[in-house]
Amino acid sequence: MHQSEKAGKGHRKGATILVIEDNKDQWAFIQRALEATFADFKPIWVPNVQQAIEYLTDCQKIGLRLPYLILLDLYLPEREVGWQLLEQIRSLDDPIGQLPIILLSSSDDKDDITHSYERGITSYIIKPTNYPAWVESFQTLKEYWLDTVSLPGSSSYF
Amino acid sequence: MHQSEKAGKGHRKGATILVIEDNKDQWAFIQRALEATFADFKPIWVPNVQQAIEYLTDCQKIGLRLPYLILLDLYLPEREVGWQLLEQIRSLDDPIGQLPIILLSSSDDKDDITHSYERGITSYIIKPTNYPAWVESFQTLKEYWLDTVSLPGSSSYF
Repeated sequence: MHQSEKAGKGHRKGATILVIEDNKDQWAFIQRALEATFADFKPIWVPNVQQAIEYLTDCQKIGLRLPYLILLDLYLPEREVGWQLLEQIRSLDDPIGQLPIILLSSSDDKDDITHSYERGITSYIIKPTNYPAWVESFQTLKEYWLDTVSLPGSSSYF
Repeated sequence: MHQSEKAGKGHRKGATILVIEDNKDQWAFIQRALEATFADFKPIWVPNVQQAIEYLTDCQKIGLRLPYLILLDLYLPEREVGWQLLEQIRSLDDPIGQLPIILLSSSDDKDDITHSYERGITSYIIKPTNYPAWVESFQTLKEYWLDTVSLPGSSSYF
């Protein structure tokens, strides 16, 4: 396996995770749990659609590192807003359009889950209700996307 | 959380994982590692494109349970065959078209990884080279897709 395809621990310094979340309290939870699990990563918080698109297009234009993962809240504050943003991100040029998008939502509604997959999310995670469960979810997220899976263009993230 | 959305252990009995792999020795490895990790699941092996499509359309037509995950080898034996099958599966009616497709390949070629994501895989895993590493990969796969993520239409699999 080429080192360029699997991220050695030393290369992760400065890699980012983009968190799109309109609720500041939820963000505080997510930030704390990310810091406990993705220790070498910098979480980037954007609270709305406009700043999310701005951040991602800046990555392209001014050569910022692409986020390794995108964590997307569905209800921003309506689910239609989350879905619209999802479709916008998926329509951006590769490799941005291919980034794993993990939807985090308090909703366990069947339609929310199905329609989110139809519109291009990679996975749907129902938001945990306590801090230890957040940490456990993010630990699994890390073991899966960092230690097990190979993503395209890994040189863009690290 | 509704029980229907998260698979309780008791509901997994009889759930399946579809493995599309043209190499019998690789299949033997995969089968053994799946049995060690996805203990309640039945791995279904198909060695070629035709049987894969037949199996999936039978799921629709005669009401077989959908596989919970699809593990797809890329070189069948050419990568173009794997990609064509991938696109065929993604064009099937939902929820089959939305199933997580995990590509397993010995190739760590950057183009193989990028083009597989472009054509719709969910994740790309470079095949481990020894049995303990297979078990570790599948253990992570299970913790992620079964214990952390919610999939659409879970009643179809269990």
